[in-house]
Amino acid sequence: MDDLLSFLRIPSISADPAYAGEVRRAAEFVRAWLERGGLENAQLIESPEAGAHPLVYADWLHAAGRPTLLLYGHYDVQPPDPVEEWLSPPFEPSIRDGNIYARGAADDKGQLFILMEAVAQSLRANGGQLPVNVKFLIEGEEESGGCHIERFVSKNPRALSANAAVICDTAMFAPEIPSITTGLRGIVYGEIFVAGAAHDLHSGDYGGVAPNAVEAIAQIMSALKSRDGTILIPGIYDRVQMPSAAEIKGWKKLPFDAEQFRRNEVGSTALTGESGYDVLTRIWARPTLEIHGIRGGYTGEGAKTVIPAAASAKISLRLVPDQKPEEVAEQLSSAIAAACPAGVVARFHPMHASPPCLIDPASPFLAKAAEAMQEVFGNSTAYIRCGGSIPIVGLIQRHLGIPSVLLGFGLPDDQIHAPNEKLFISNYLRGIVSIVGYFERLRFSAG
Amino acid sequence: MDDLLSFLRIPSISADPAYAGEVRRAAEFVRAWLERGGLENAQLIESPEAGAHPLVYADWLHAAGRPTLLLYGHYDVQPPDPVEEWLSPPFEPSIRDGNIYARGAADDKGQLFILMEAVAQSLRANGGQLPVNVKFLIEGEEESGGCHIERFVSKNPRALSANAAVICDTAMFAPEIPSITTGLRGIVYGEIFVAGAAHDLHSGDYGGVAPNAVEAIAQIMSALKSRDGTILIPGIYDRVQMPSAAEIKGWKKLPFDAEQFRRNEVGSTALTGESGYDVLTRIWARPTLEIHGIRGGYTGEGAKTVIPAAASAKISLRLVPDQKPEEVAEQLSSAIAAACPAGVVARFHPMHASPPCLIDPASPFLAKAAEAMQEVFGNSTAYIRCGGSIPIVGLIQRHLGIPSVLLGFGLPDDQIHAPNEKLFISNYLRGIVSIVGYFERLRFSAG
Repeated sequence: MDDLLSFLRIPSISADPAYAGEVRRAAEFVRAWLERGGLENAQLIESPEAGAHPLVYADWLHAAGRPTLLLYGHYDVQPPDPVEEWLSPPFEPSIRDGNIYARGAADDKGQLFILMEAVAQSLRANGGQLPVNVKFLIEGEEESGGCHIERFVSKNPRALSANAAVICDTAMFAPEIPSITTGLRGIVYGEIFVAGAAHDLHSGDYGGVAPNAVEAIAQIMSALKSRDGTILIPGIYDRVQMPSAAEIKGWKKLPFDAEQFRRNEVGSTALTGESGYDVLTRIWARPTLEIHGIRGGYTGEGAKTVIPAAASAKISLRLVPDQKPEEVAEQLSSAIAAACPAGVVARFHPMHASPPCLIDPASPFLAKAAEAMQEVFGNSTAYIRCGGSIPIVGLIQRHLGIPSVLLGFGLPDDQIHAPNEKLFISNYLRGIVSIVGYFERLRFSAG
Repeated sequence: MDDLLSFLRIPSISADPAYAGEVRRAAEFVRAWLERGGLENAQLIESPEAGAHPLVYADWLHAAGRPTLLLYGHYDVQPPDPVEEWLSPPFEPSIRDGNIYARGAADDKGQLFILMEAVAQSLRANGGQLPVNVKFLIEGEEESGGCHIERFVSKNPRALSANAAVICDTAMFAPEIPSITTGLRGIVYGEIFVAGAAHDLHSGDYGGVAPNAVEAIAQIMSALKSRDGTILIPGIYDRVQMPSAAEIKGWKKLPFDAEQFRRNEVGSTALTGESGYDVLTRIWARPTLEIHGIRGGYTGEGAKTVIPAAASAKISLRLVPDQKPEEVAEQLSSAIAAACPAGVVARFHPMHASPPCLIDPASPFLAKAAEAMQEVFGNSTAYIRCGGSIPIVGLIQRHLGIPSVLLGFGLPDDQIHAPNEKLFISNYLRGIVSIVGYFERLRFSAG
């Protein structure tokens, strides 16, 4: 596990250009590790685009006639802000109560290492041979919405051909319940910029006549979503498909207590969102709109009486089948324009997008993974969805035409994207055993 | 003028504790300058409160039987943010096109220096004697809402007794129109804090069920004020008194073009605010609500998909006669509580307040000041109001029972509280001559 700890020490924050060198160091770390572990053709794949982060590729393709798995993970991480809320520094892994605490512990360095370790252990256990063929494709722009992997996958479907993809970047539904994710929400992410007066003005001399850019953003945000969570963007629900009755029936069997969830995971005085839909449906199968950050005006110490001339906010919509990101981005952009108050100019700048995704639970590649996990964890595998977005799943579906097997060993309280992210070490170890077992179960399948 | 430039080089930002030493340096500078200029009893008056900034006092009281003037100004300045928008550094005064550019050039260091220079020149011109008695009382907490001067004035009415106060901290209505301000708006300033989930959450995993603190602040702000500028806080207009017909008639004669004002001073696509009131009335005689700055969530480079658990915003209300700050603060606090959406907790933290103020234009101390300025500028003096707050005027009215003569030599486009603040040098020089002339006109009044 020392190698994982070294990996977690690299602050590979892909969204912040100041960390570009560290992101590259993480890529090199993975490439070198895979090469040492017995993989072949281990290499960095560079993007022609300035500021992009390399892909890491490696393969082992000597199991003739057997299935080929495309193994995906990402070596980049979210920014650690707010850093002051971490109990131990985000890039100095700390082991407490059976968990590793570090930015990226669960999302996704720790889970990527499950795949890497499983392949290396399987090679060692089988005298340098694997029961299946594998191709690693590991990216460094998952948290920043970069498009290097999208371009690479779309241009190289033959080099990446496989029977299924295995993606280790999700969470189990609950402790001890192995889970396969069969649906992901898509996303449209961007920034709203509002400009009012030519410059900040004194609220004594101009209060009552000058537009206020922060106030305008507040009005725009309030116009996009009602207090009960209904998105007020015209047309936004037109393509939304509800899950099948069978799928919803499966969800109702899951061990879930909304009140416990509120208290232990959210920690707020109440849950919010659309009335008429239960919690899991709201997270997994309904579109949502969030504001992720806002800035404008004076936010330093003490009192300053400016009317802010400019303000900006980062926002996103989560999408569900069959919403289309391009269409939603246009609907959002139009709704922002329509909600813009007099005296200011509002502009939506799209940053990244990915479509929602469904995976057929009937695929044998999902069934064998479910069996392998069930054996290790001792509980039957649940089929769940995930409210987040993993753009690679849609890419693989579109360009390679194969199912993605989303095996997650994270836990719901792993605090990914938040302070004090962690990974449960027992899940890390059982994850490796599960993947080794999955490879064994595929030994007698045809490629 | 070299002394003024040295004064402007001191970053005496009272709102930011990091600049406490510079604020004190500015106080010392003024005290020493007055002593050299021939004033007596020049001293710093300390506050017992931690983090407070000293008052500067000095007097000359040898014009027996003649009026005594209390001369007020402030040596502290607003923060210079956003610093990157300054064409020359805020604390390195730059002379361009007949103006001095620096933070504090107009508000208030340059105008304070008009009073200081006028007294020093009058002393020199009269062989070490002044036509009137003067007491300087200069503060360093005007921009930070500190209460040192309030306590001092309320506890020392006898030491500060005078026939009128002269305050040089306002602007002329327009270039070449000398102006006396007869009304000021009050203010209630504070910060809204909103807390939702226990910590930031991932919008994929919790979007649709977790409260969003930034969204909640946007909803609260939108509930406090309509798009047409009407404040929606219950009871807020109950005590509002409209100006007299005579006063409004005077305002209508002022050279003012709303379209030019929009284009040249505000620079927005439209003016905002309550329909049914003209621009000057909206600024001078109507209460207004502004949000001065907001923060919450991720505002760094790139994309981060958090649901912010906390957010805050600085806001204020400008008050007009006869609104009461304590009552308005309570109305605001109640309205915030009433507008708070489910799942979050909102709290209003008041920071400072001052009442609105009216000064009787019939006072002879105003009339003689008007005559003195008219002689220097060649235009008759206008009686105007100011939309800003100068808390000292209310203090003087309440505790000393004397009128304040608000003589301003700033210009409407001086960019106070904004980048590229300036002072028109010609007004600085004519201001000094006007004040010297004002002293001469008071030579034969009784004290």
